Amino acid sequence: MDTDFRITLPLPAIDDPELRQRVQAALDAKTKPLGALGRLESLALQIALVQDAQHPVLREPQLVVFAADHGIAVRGVSAFPPEVTRQMVLNFLAGGAAVSVLARQHRLSLTVVDCGVAADFEPHPMLVSMKVAGAGYGTADASRGPALSDPQCRTAIEQGRRLVDTLPGNVLLLGEMGIGNTSAAALLMARLTGESLEACTGRGTGLDDAGLLAKREVLAQALAANPAASAPLQALAALGGLEIATMVGAVQQAASAGRLIVVDGFVTTAAVAVAAALQPEILGRCVFAHRSRETGHARWLQLLGVRPLLDLDLRLGEGSGAALAWPLLESACRVLAEMASFESAGVSQRGA
Amino acid sequence: MDTDFRITLPLPAIDDPELRQRVQAALDAKTKPLGALGRLESLALQIALVQDAQHPVLREPQLVVFAADHGIAVRGVSAFPPEVTRQMVLNFLAGGAAVSVLARQHRLSLTVVDCGVAADFEPHPMLVSMKVAGAGYGTADASRGPALSDPQCRTAIEQGRRLVDTLPGNVLLLGEMGIGNTSAAALLMARLTGESLEACTGRGTGLDDAGLLAKREVLAQALAANPAASAPLQALAALGGLEIATMVGAVQQAASAGRLIVVDGFVTTAAVAVAAALQPEILGRCVFAHRSRETGHARWLQLLGVRPLLDLDLRLGEGSGAALAWPLLESACRVLAEMASFESAGVSQRGA
Repeated sequence: MDTDFRITLPLPAIDDPELRQRVQAALDAKTKPLGALGRLESLALQIALVQDAQHPVLREPQLVVFAADHGIAVRGVSAFPPEVTRQMVLNFLAGGAAVSVLARQHRLSLTVVDCGVAADFEPHPMLVSMKVAGAGYGTADASRGPALSDPQCRTAIEQGRRLVDTLPGNVLLLGEMGIGNTSAAALLMARLTGESLEACTGRGTGLDDAGLLAKREVLAQALAANPAASAPLQALAALGGLEIATMVGAVQQAASAGRLIVVDGFVTTAAVAVAAALQPEILGRCVFAHRSRETGHARWLQLLGVRPLLDLDLRLGEGSGAALAWPLLESACRVLAEMASFESAGVSQRGA
Repeated sequence: MDTDFRITLPLPAIDDPELRQRVQAALDAKTKPLGALGRLESLALQIALVQDAQHPVLREPQLVVFAADHGIAVRGVSAFPPEVTRQMVLNFLAGGAAVSVLARQHRLSLTVVDCGVAADFEPHPMLVSMKVAGAGYGTADASRGPALSDPQCRTAIEQGRRLVDTLPGNVLLLGEMGIGNTSAAALLMARLTGESLEACTGRGTGLDDAGLLAKREVLAQALAANPAASAPLQALAALGGLEIATMVGAVQQAASAGRLIVVDGFVTTAAVAVAAALQPEILGRCVFAHRSRETGHARWLQLLGVRPLLDLDLRLGEGSGAALAWPLLESACRVLAEMASFESAGVSQRGA
């Protein structure tokens, strides 16, 4: 598998100036002051460009929760015990988690991917097993060496690509679950951006002050234990996680296939940041759903040069923020498709 | 009518500490870290308290667009000509306006109220006529004297109360239309809060720099022409508008009947601010949907001590922001109703 691994996938162009001009003209002709729908208008334009269509349509949106366990969790970096990853996967499948509720509300198809949870699951129609040989029950402890080998990481990426290829629709909404995965995301942020661990490390599921200090200490050990892993894919293997690596592949495949990508919080941003480090044009295909309260997320979004839609003090993950932002994407498309123009409605234009 | 006019209506209590404790406990038992759903959780708690119910249900939401014309518009305070008020009412009824599209998306019942548009309309099932004798075609020019007499203002308030009384459901979403009405709202803000006209006056539908300066000059004349109108209802009559006065009554009636109120942008905030000046407890019944880009709105929300849900650079009015925030209210109720608890899902609690 390794020999023909492609680090990036080809991306369709999304900068057709003629289409941009036509969509902008259509928005400007709607019965409203110029630009009065603010970010809804820029969102409509982005979706049109990603879909290469003057009348974009959101079709069969897929919310995928990528789940995996993290060796570093044994170091006590989370307020919750590692078995919660498995338990929450069962909760997703049973329909009781926040993202289950929100996906039902907005009729988002929900898929859970076992990228390396420390458990074996009964087959379930919503569950896809994508365990990686040698890391099927989670990563190694990154504070003592690489979390994944490079081949394991590549396998996870390729599986993420294959997964998206099998899913219908033209929108991918990213979600994740994994006790310890804000540690992996913080490590990736620190390594990829050069920001301090203080700026990158948050309370995750709710560490107290002492827990936060201890987490930073463990993360410092992880950076020290993986000194050479600085290129994006090497950092992903050494410091990341199986769900993050699988998401990197999913993001690449979605972007390559012209799908829109809806990014959730801190951990999904880590996956997008790795993909964007390899191929910055990926960002134009992404809608950032919200600014999480997890330390590091606001700064990372800023460094990526992107602005999220929502700011609701969320810090849950699972794709909950992506699901909450979903109706705004639908609104953007509807405004473009359904609003009357000044001419069609017989409304006077502004004065001179 | 004037003799038995009540300045405020009785308000049901919404501070049952026992209910608050029960709802908070239910939220805390859900399968998520404590508080991880952020503002969605505080929203669920607020709705529960307003409905006095541990399991709040949003029933038949009513989006009402209050429309009227403004005498001050002849002074050129808007980028659009006054006939646009009438034209946009017809656009609402025809389903082509932004709020029409968003109300359809979220299945919000849409009603348009003619509170004093400078036109006569054919009957339409979505249109309610609530013109006020002597001001049926709009207010007088506030830059030369009171926009409304006190009796006209009281009539508009009483009509707003009566309107809500006839509408089904337990949620009122506020919208408005009226060329010149950001001028009326800015005047009310300046008079009620003491902020400068610079801080209160924005570009409305899109004034350029010269237009903005001219608008401020006209508004300064209006404040000077109505020096004694400082009590809330007197300010409302002298400086406000028919749609704003009708909304004040609608807000009072909705709050009194235990309905939740969803506030849109700058002009609907003016109505809520007048109602809250008379009865501060009104604010607890209000969800502020968004922070508008119209100058003054952010500051007014701050002075009212409230935090809006969305911040999307909207400056359209019509109730468009209220409609866009609607799914978040539904999500809040669904999370409270449908999410599994740690116990029911068999998920481990956090460590010690």
